[in-house]
Order: sequence, then structure tokens, then C-alpha cells
Amino acid sequence: MLAAVCHGRKDLRIEDRPDRELAADEVRVAVAYGGICGSDLHYYHRGAVGDFAVREPLTLGHEISGTVLEWGRDVRGLSRGMKAALDPSRPCLRCAYCRAGRINLCTDMWFLGSAGRFPHSQGGFSQHLVMRQDQVIPVPDDTDLLRLACAEPLSVALHAVNRAGSLTGRRVIVSGSGPIGLLTARAAALAGAVDVVCTDIEEAPLRVAREFMGATQTINVAADPRGLATFEEDARAFDVAFEASGSPAALASLFRVLRRGGRLVQVGMLPPGTTPVPVNALQSRELEFLGAFRNNDEFRLAVDAIVRGRIDVTPILSGIWPLAQAAQALDLAGDRSRVVKLHLQINAALT
Amino acid sequence: MLAAVCHGRKDLRIEDRPDRELAADEVRVAVAYGGICGSDLHYYHRGAVGDFAVREPLTLGHEISGTVLEWGRDVRGLSRGMKAALDPSRPCLRCAYCRAGRINLCTDMWFLGSAGRFPHSQGGFSQHLVMRQDQVIPVPDDTDLLRLACAEPLSVALHAVNRAGSLTGRRVIVSGSGPIGLLTARAAALAGAVDVVCTDIEEAPLRVAREFMGATQTINVAADPRGLATFEEDARAFDVAFEASGSPAALASLFRVLRRGGRLVQVGMLPPGTTPVPVNALQSRELEFLGAFRNNDEFRLAVDAIVRGRIDVTPILSGIWPLAQAAQALDLAGDRSRVVKLHLQINAALT
Amino acid sequence: MLAAVCHGRKDLRIEDRPDRELAADEVRVAVAYGGICGSDLHYYHRGAVGDFAVREPLTLGHEISGTVLEWGRDVRGLSRGMKAALDPSRPCLRCAYCRAGRINLCTDMWFLGSAGRFPHSQGGFSQHLVMRQDQVIPVPDDTDLLRLACAEPLSVALHAVNRAGSLTGRRVIVSGSGPIGLLTARAAALAGAVDVVCTDIEEAPLRVAREFMGATQTINVAADPRGLATFEEDARAFDVAFEASGSPAALASLFRVLRRGGRLVQVGMLPPGTTPVPVNALQSRELEFLGAFRNNDEFRLAVDAIVRGRIDVTPILSGIWPLAQAAQALDLAGDRSRVVKLHLQINAALT
Amino acid sequence: MLAAVCHGRKDLRIEDRPDRELAADEVRVAVAYGGICGSDLHYYHRGAVGDFAVREPLTLGHEISGTVLEWGRDVRGLSRGMKAALDPSRPCLRCAYCRAGRINLCTDMWFLGSAGRFPHSQGGFSQHLVMRQDQVIPVPDDTDLLRLACAEPLSVALHAVNRAGSLTGRRVIVSGSGPIGLLTARAAALAGAVDVVCTDIEEAPLRVAREFMGATQTINVAADPRGLATFEEDARAFDVAFEASGSPAALASLFRVLRRGGRLVQVGMLPPGTTPVPVNALQSRELEFLGAFRNNDEFRLAVDAIVRGRIDVTPILSGIWPLAQAAQALDLAGDRSRVVKLHLQINAALT
Repeated sequence: MLAAVCHGRKDLRIEDRPDRELAADEVRVAVAYGGICGSDLHYYHRGAVGDFAVREPLTLGHEISGTVLEWGRDVRGLSRGMKAALDPSRPCLRCAYCRAGRINLCTDMWFLGSAGRFPHSQGGFSQHLVMRQDQVIPVPDDTDLLRLACAEPLSVALHAVNRAGSLTGRRVIVSGSGPIGLLTARAAALAGAVDVVCTDIEEAPLRVAREFMGATQTINVAADPRGLATFEEDARAFDVAFEASGSPAALASLFRVLRRGGRLVQVGMLPPGTTPVPVNALQSRELEFLGAFRNNDEFRLAVDAIVRGRIDVTPILSGIWPLAQAAQALDLAGDRSRVVKLHLQINAALT
Repeated sequence: MLAAVCHGRKDLRIEDRPDRELAADEVRVAVAYGGICGSDLHYYHRGAVGDFAVREPLTLGHEISGTVLEWGRDVRGLSRGMKAALDPSRPCLRCAYCRAGRINLCTDMWFLGSAGRFPHSQGGFSQHLVMRQDQVIPVPDDTDLLRLACAEPLSVALHAVNRAGSLTGRRVIVSGSGPIGLLTARAAALAGAVDVVCTDIEEAPLRVAREFMGATQTINVAADPRGLATFEEDARAFDVAFEASGSPAALASLFRVLRRGGRLVQVGMLPPGTTPVPVNALQSRELEFLGAFRNNDEFRLAVDAIVRGRIDVTPILSGIWPLAQAAQALDLAGDRSRVVKLHLQINAALT
Repeated sequence: MLAAVCHGRKDLRIEDRPDRELAADEVRVAVAYGGICGSDLHYYHRGAVGDFAVREPLTLGHEISGTVLEWGRDVRGLSRGMKAALDPSRPCLRCAYCRAGRINLCTDMWFLGSAGRFPHSQGGFSQHLVMRQDQVIPVPDDTDLLRLACAEPLSVALHAVNRAGSLTGRRVIVSGSGPIGLLTARAAALAGAVDVVCTDIEEAPLRVAREFMGATQTINVAADPRGLATFEEDARAFDVAFEASGSPAALASLFRVLRRGGRLVQVGMLPPGTTPVPVNALQSRELEFLGAFRNNDEFRLAVDAIVRGRIDVTPILSGIWPLAQAAQALDLAGDRSRVVKLHLQINAALT
Repeated sequence: MLAAVCHGRKDLRIEDRPDRELAADEVRVAVAYGGICGSDLHYYHRGAVGDFAVREPLTLGHEISGTVLEWGRDVRGLSRGMKAALDPSRPCLRCAYCRAGRINLCTDMWFLGSAGRFPHSQGGFSQHLVMRQDQVIPVPDDTDLLRLACAEPLSVALHAVNRAGSLTGRRVIVSGSGPIGLLTARAAALAGAVDVVCTDIEEAPLRVAREFMGATQTINVAADPRGLATFEEDARAFDVAFEASGSPAALASLFRVLRRGGRLVQVGMLPPGTTPVPVNALQSRELEFLGAFRNNDEFRLAVDAIVRGRIDVTPILSGIWPLAQAAQALDLAGDRSRVVKLHLQINAALT
């Protein structure tokens, strides 16, 4: 089977990788599509994500969909060829965090396509893949596998929204209109937020935000650096802010437009090291600054939302590239003026 | 009546200030004792607290106790000479924050002894004082008015603990063992924390922490800079951290010893400007970084705890100075090797 | 000025009532429309609501809208003829519940048109009315005053939804499709619920639920007594149930279709006395049974939702009657096969 | 190995039962002590607990402690003879409830000594027992195995307290002073409750409550039927109530003494069927009525509290009977005037 394997900085190879045996509770799947995520870009362009460097060949990818091929003897309820959403998280289900319902914080997580542990956790840009049964979620036959490959980024957005608490009637700002920012805006609107303001430094994604993602207002902070100033007055400030840009300047701006007692959810990954934070404002205004990491079983909600059409992810789809051209796709994927999210077609036969 | 009035940096005068008329819902009290707080020290030594400079003469003080002198026509339930806890917070009770039960975030707060608004909100180091009825909480005759003057700092500690959520069975660290840190440790222990680790750079307050405040362990981070290293492993990390030192280095150390999903409550005031924060760790470990500001009606709980003897504040009392020597007291109050908290005796006759 | 005054069971009189003086923080308004609520019906048909009997003439009504006539000297921001939403709640803002942000639980509440205290709190079916400034919420000139008169029942629905916690991705059932049930369904859908099942014993309101209120399924439990049986299996059970029918049988049915750990919010008023509850199921399945009473400042959210058109209340409007025919309107209002909600036009000139 | 096996109503036999094979993740333990719980009494005296009848021979018991005998090949960290707390809960760790951190609500739970599923889940009054590794929690050598056998009932109390939310500064009532009620009172005091009122109809357990369990007041509701009347005024009402008696009359009394917005946690099991509940009071006072079932990993906190001596369970220990006399012990255990909790010594050699 072929896979897109990162051997280091700017060294991506489409190469043959051996299949492995199935355990009793595992399933072999064929991967249809794989979305390219910011972490894939970091592995490819820098050879590392944050402090985690590629130390052995690493198959990239974790935003995938596919079909069922075969399964171990304890697995029930599947049939060959069945379409499935594929959850990249394989938590241990035994550590204290798993037992407490925080499976995304599992201390023994295998997450597809991550150099965060060694040996690395191999990824999903691979024609075949072995997953534990709970990672394979059957969907109806008429499900579009391309859209379904957006279940993981959508789950991240839904998790961020859940970290924010109830949004009914709340005023919300999202900084950064990449895929996660856009989906977070959409999820916040769906959760009852009355105002959803999106920011970015590019016009193209802001148009998507306005037209499709429920943004009630967008601000291009490159073109209009004072665009957020009006929200600094108490009466116009936001109840909840989501930082999805990874920019320290954006983070700083959110602290200025959050009402007293407001909550800031950090979804994006900032540059390595520390970031300046107005801690005295956090203290005297009783702000709440929370991290949101991957998802905590919101993957299932995301699958349901896509399957039922409650959330249309089509507006973030920017194109499909064959697996053989993965490197070109990775080169293009970072151009935010033209691309929201690119996908690789891993097995051409599956759609 | 005499008051301790700050006219600017290092300019404290004991001077006569006129009384004012009582409104229908107000009470005139005689102040017995006034505790010297960090903000009083900042006004005196720097002429400012954070960004708030002394722009007109400001009577200092907000940690006070006293007795009832007279009251307006709508006030019920008082008698002359009655002892009372005196709540320095006078929220508007009408703004959106007050209506939502966040009265400490009131946008029209009058808090004793604060230059945060102009004209300034005059303080409590004053022989007579006019307060709204809800600021005057009668206590039994046998209450010690000196201990009662610790109700405000204790309320800050109780509020910080409430911001942390349930502490039953939790492992807690408190950085900084000044009055607020010590009382927070005590309040955390009382709330069911199983481990309470206190840090400081002075030995004297750590001894108080160990002997009287429920600390199960203390660490002098000046003498033992690696003293917290052992808590960096996941299994020994803390569920909840309280930052009560105002030191950026202490704050940074807390982020290293907090378990995934743990909560850090900022109680102390840091130097002006921003502080470096490991935001990526906050994001990927889903930490919760919350401010705790003054108190949100925990003042009443604090009074109850002191009156009933549930919390003994005696170990933080470091001495009493007459109002006439307020400047000397302020000069001495910053010496943390010898002082936890000093008090002024405002009216000599009341005890 | 004329008012619709209940003198006891079946004794409603349109009579002249004197105006009263304005206090400094009060506003005199002209009432445009008044919605007829279940409690108005109880006062009229039974002479009592629950245990609260009419002991002196009581002007009914609390679902009102109107315009500003004049105001006291401390009031700011109004102009004569300005349209306004009129909040029937006048909490004391001083008791422990108000200070804790639970103003709907105020121990000294004046709520329009209630015999819950004596002298009674007179109601809003009155051409002129004096309210405290915070009860008068200006709205844009082009606001429809009839729809605006639905702000109060909508606020009850929004409050019920807030009592349920976050509904994003949740499966919800609402028993009873009267005005409150319908608006609760609509509010739950708007808060992100993925399934909203509505029940009733009449077909007419269920049609409104399906066509306009976001119900994904409706069940006529009179026509199909086993209609809920399918939800008794764990996999199909509901996360959240709202009881809005006031029927003990409906309440019992909800306990059977709630998943383990699910929450049941009681919005409706049941017959006086106790109701049988399966407490052992509540215990062993860790159900959460919560009351929702009136609203806790969700009135402001309701006004915003109506003014902005986020929630269209038109489908619950069943007709307008002149004040002079209030008794006929009250006689008709209980016919649930034809009526969802009737309104009185209190001042004919205002629309 | 010998076990105390219930064959039906009043039919308890001490008989030899075969051991079973160890799986790779399992541990064989020798049981030292087994506490007699209310459910054991129900199986013995009625042949059923609630709706769950004994349909095949059922070894009773789930409050146990012991030592390690041998273990499967995947188990780490044990040594032969090591003392251990033994958790009677074996959740599946895979169902939606387990994944959400509600393992006590697991839909595929094996809980020691329960007829709630068929084949029954055999219990712990058995000389040898096979448990999954996570059920076996090593403790220090000097731990008293008799006290340790109280970890399970203590975990139920800690869970009930966790269901109540933060108790710091709260006023608490516990109805019923059996083992669970007493331990709940103790846990509530440890969690910072300022008042803890315990009720019962027997004097003996109330004395234990007062002298050892942190009760600030006790009320014998048999001797003084109006003993709770004083708490019906709003100012004296309780913030939180725990129903631990299983008596409908006690439950009714709690609804009368709970403040508006207060929370009632149902821990005890009531008679089969429904119980009358004042639902209108629940609705109009926004009460919160929650179930608490077994424990959700508070077992680990309970073990820690016993091992460290933070909670002394000695006052609830009423005597030890040899396994051979289990039937006599069960006959005696229901006499609440003399017994709080009896234990069986399952293996005489272990202490």
C-alpha cells in the first residue's frame, strides 16, 4: 500500500509501506480522502510541530474518511465496503484522564500522524490503515466521503465551542479564519450565539465566513488595524473569544475586547515559547483563559452534523489532489489567499 | 475626624477630614482597626496602584472593622455601639454584572480607598465613615474587632477558592505566602484539599503556613530553586494552583506543575504590562487560567468564619500601630521577613 | 385609565383605575398589547393560581409591550412615544438571591398581575402603568408591538433552556406544546439541539411545532399513547427533557425516555399538591430534575431575539381582542384546539 | 474457596465455589473483610433489591479489602501478599457513559454482588476473588484492612458530596444517619460545609453523628416531629440536602427546608414505585433534585482518605463476625438501635 511519508524537512515521499496484522478489536480500512492540516504543513515545511521533530519516517495525515476492508474476531456490526468516518484518536481508555471523561488529554494517546511520541504514531495518508473498532464509525451509503473527511476539523471546532460553555444569546469573536476558525464560527452560530465576528488578515476566508459560516461581521485586521477598537467599550465587548489564528497579536487584541468575566478559548497553536499576556487584566476583570485541544468525543457529533447536513463543510473545500502529488499539494496548501483546505485523494476508487 | 490621607508618593498625612451627611439607606460607623494591604503600600511608596495614580488626596484603607454610630431613616436592625464588620465594596446593584451575580465586577463600584475612579473612592483609615446599610454587618458583642478587620483579605481568599471549583480531594499549590496566599491555603484546606503546598522566598511566612494555615508542605524557592521540580511529573502534578505572589517567575513555575486540565487562579497583582505565559502548554494541556478579583459576597462568609472561629486569623497578625504613626507602619509593612500583616488602630477606644 | 380587573372567580371587570405618582426612578408607559397567559386564565376561571387566591381586585396581565409617556427625574435615555419592551419583573436587587444573580428568586419581587403577595401586585392589562426604569427597554421604532408582547413568554423559554445547560448536539424532548412548550422547542433548536421532539394531546399546536418551531418530530400522545415507547431504549433516549404541559402523566413519561445522567427541566405548573415521581430511577440513573421559574434576565435576550427577528413568534399568535372584550377572550383562550395565544389590545392607538 | 451465597429469601449458605482462570489483565485476591450493606440485607431478607430478584445463587458483598495472590501476564506493579483496596466496580470503559467520565452509569457494569444483570455479578464475600487490575489498589503495609473495607461506602458519600457542587460555606442537612448518611455528613464537613444537620429516628447513630462525624446539630425526628420546622423560614433554610434514609417522609421534609435554588441529592433507595414529590415547589423555587449512584472513581479518594487518616471510619464499625456466621450477622445487621455497620471476616489470617 502507498503512503505519503515525511522523512524530514521538505522531504515527502510516496512510498510503499507494509500492512500490519489485525488484533481482535481492530479494523482494516481503505482511506478515501485526507485533508491537509496545519500540523501536516509544519512537519513538511519545518520537519517538526512545536517541539516535536520528525525522528523517523512519519506518514502524515489525520483528517480522513474511508471504507471498511476487514476486521478482527471481536468486532461486530461492520460489513465489507461500508463507508465510515475515521476517528484519528485512539486513547488508552484506562488512564486517569480517560476515566474522568477527558480522553483528549489521555497520557497514552495514539493520534494519527504525530511525532509527539516515539516510535511515532503513523498517520492516515495511507491507502490502508488499521484502527481500533471505536475509531471506525459507520455512516449511510449516500454519505459524501470528501465532506466526511472534514469530521476531524469540525470536531475540533465543536470541542472549542463546548469549552466555551453555553453560547445561547452570547456575543462571540473568532480570530483567524482558517479551517478551524471558520468551523468554530459556524459551530458557535449553531450553538445560539447572537453575534459572531470573524477576523483575518486575508479577504478570501473572510468572505467564506460571511457568506457561509454564520459570521455576522468580519474584520480584516491587516486592512483595518483599528477595526476592533469599537469593541473595546464595555457595552460592545464580547462574551466569548476564540483564538484560532496562532498569532500573538491576535491573542493580545482579544484580551482588549472581552467583557469582564468573559472567556477566551485558545484553539490555535502559537509560535514556540511563551507569549505576552495581560495577566493583570485577566486578574482584575476575572477573565477565563482556557485551552481547547483536539476533541473530546465531539468527533461523533461532527460526523452526525455532516451526515445529516446540519453543517455544510463544502465552503471550506478548496480542491482535491491525487496522493502521488501530495508534495505539490502541501506546497500549495499554505497559500491562504487561495486555499482554505486541500484534500488528497488516497484511494482513487472511493468517493 | 482624623484620617490617613495619601497626597502622593511618600506623602501620607494624618489630617482632619469633614464628615458627610447620611442618606436614608446609610450608616455612620466608627472605625476600630484598619489592616494595611499591598495596595495601600503601592499608593504610599509609588503614588499609584498599577495604572491608577493618586490624582487628589486619597484616604487609604479598606480592611476595617468598627461600631455603629448613627443611621438613616430607612435603615433597620442596628443599635448604637453595635460591633460590625465593614464591607469595603459598594456595588451599584443595577448594572449587568450586578444583576448577573458578579457584583465584584460592577462597572460602577465604590471600593474603599481606591484611585481607580475619579473623584477617588475615599478609604477606611478614617475615624468616622459613611457606608450603605448592606456594607455594615452586625456581629456579636464578644467579637474581637482586630481579627474582624481581617474579613476582607479572608474574603479574597475564599473568593479565589470559589473560583477554583470544588477542592474536595484535590492537590493544591499556592505561590506566595503573604496574607492572601496564607489565607488562601487555609481556605483551600478547609474546602477539602488533600495536599496544600505553599511557596515563598522568605522563611518566616512559610513557617506560618506550615504551623497554622494547613500547608502540608512548604518550599522556599529562593533557598531551593529546584524545589518544585519533583511536581513536574504527571503523577505528582497539582489539580489547582493559586498565584498569590505577583511574581512572573512564580507564575511560570505554576504552569510547569499543573496537571492536564488543571486550573490556575491568579489572585496576585503582577508588575504592570504583560507577562510571558506558555500559551501552547495552556492550549495542548487544556489548562484553565482564571482571574480572581476582590470578592463576590464571600465577605459574608469570611465574617461568619471569623465570628464562629472556623478560621483563626491570629497567625497573620504582626502588630498594631496608632493612626498617628501610619507612615511608620507603612514603612515597616513591606518587610516580609518580619511582617505578615500590620494594623492601624483608628479609634483607640474600640477593641 | 381602564384596566381588566379580576374580582374573583369568573368576575372580570373593565373599570377605571387611578394612576399613581412617579418616583424618581420610574416611568409611566402606555400599554399596547397584553398576551393572555395560563396564570391569567387560572385567576379568571378559578379565582386562584395554585395556592394564591384573589383576595382583592387584581388587574391581570404580565405579557405586555407599550410606549413611554413620562418619567421621573433620575431616569435617562427615554423620549416620549418611544416604543419599549416592558419587563413584568421588579426584583428588589438587594436580597441574597438578587445579589447572587438569581433575581427571579427574589424574596421581595413585584411581578405584574400576581396574587402571590398581599397587597397584590397589580398587572399590565391596564392602559397606563408605572414601572421602574430597568423594566422599560427601548426598542427601535419599526418594532412590531404585538410580537414584542411575546418577549415575556419567550424569556421563560430561554430561561428553561439556560437551566438545561449547553444543548449543542443534544437530543431534546418537550412535553406540552402550548406557548411555553413551543417557544422552548424553538429556543432549544436555536441553542444547537440536534433532535427536538414535541408532544401534545392536540393536533393543532403540534402542527405549529413541526412547521415553525424547529421540532424534528411530533407525537400526539392522545392519538398514539405508545408513541414515546421507542425512546425508552438507552440508545434513543433524550439528553434533556422539558416538561411544559403541567400534566403528571406527561412528567411520568419523560422519566422513562431520559438517558442516564439526563436532565429534566420542569417549566409547567402541575396540579396543586404532590406528584408521583420515580425517585429510585432518578437516584440509580443519576437524573437531574430542576425547576425553571419565570426568567432570570433572559427577558433582555428575548427582546433582542424578537427585535432582530432571530425568533419569529408570529406562529403562536392566535388573534387580538379589544380590552373591552377581555372576558370573552379569556373564555376563548383555553380552547387549545384553536388557540395558541390570544392578545388584548389595551390601547387601540398603539401598534 | 468458601463464599456466602444467597439462594433466595432467607436462604444464605456458606459453600465451596470454584475459582476461575485469570485473564491477562486480572488479579486473584484473598478477601480479608466484607462490610454488610443495605443491599446485602435486601437480598437476604427479601430475595431481591428493588426490582432485581435473585434468580440464581448469588455470592453477596461488595465492601471488601484484601491481599494480592497472583496476577495475569499484563499486570504490573504488584507483589504477593501486598495489601489492597478492592473496588467493586468493573465498568466496561468503552460505552458512551464510560467515555464521558460517568463510569458509574456504565451500561455494561459488573458490580460485585448484584442481581441487576443475568447471569448475576457474583460478589465479594468469598475467600478468593478475580478482579481486573484497575479494581486492585495497593495500599501501604501498615493499613488496617478492616477500616479499608469501608472505602466503598465512603466513596458513595464522597460521590454524593461531589454531586452537590462546592460546599464551602454551605448549610447542609443529611436525612438518615446510617453508614452512608454518617459518612456523607463527615465528607460534607470536610468539604467546608459550615453547618451539618443530621436526622434519624434512632438516637444511637445521631450520637455518632454528633461526636465523630462533624454534625453541628442532630434531630431525632421520631422523638421531635417538629424538629425541622425552624428551618422552614427562608433565612435558616439549607443550601444542600442529602436524602440518605430511604424514607418518603424524610424526602418530603427536605423539600420544606431547602432554600430557593437549593439542591437535594438523593443517595438512599426508596421503596419500590413512585414517591410523592412537591413538583410545583421544585418548579417555582428552582430546586435541583439529583440522583447519586454508587461512585464515579471517588473510590480512589476514599482509599486515600482512609490510608492517610483524613477520615476516621472507626466510629461506624459495630463488630466483626466470622464468615461461617454470616447469616447471624445479616440477622443482626438491621437492628439500627445497636448497629451501624457489621463486617464479616472472610479470611481469618488477614488483618
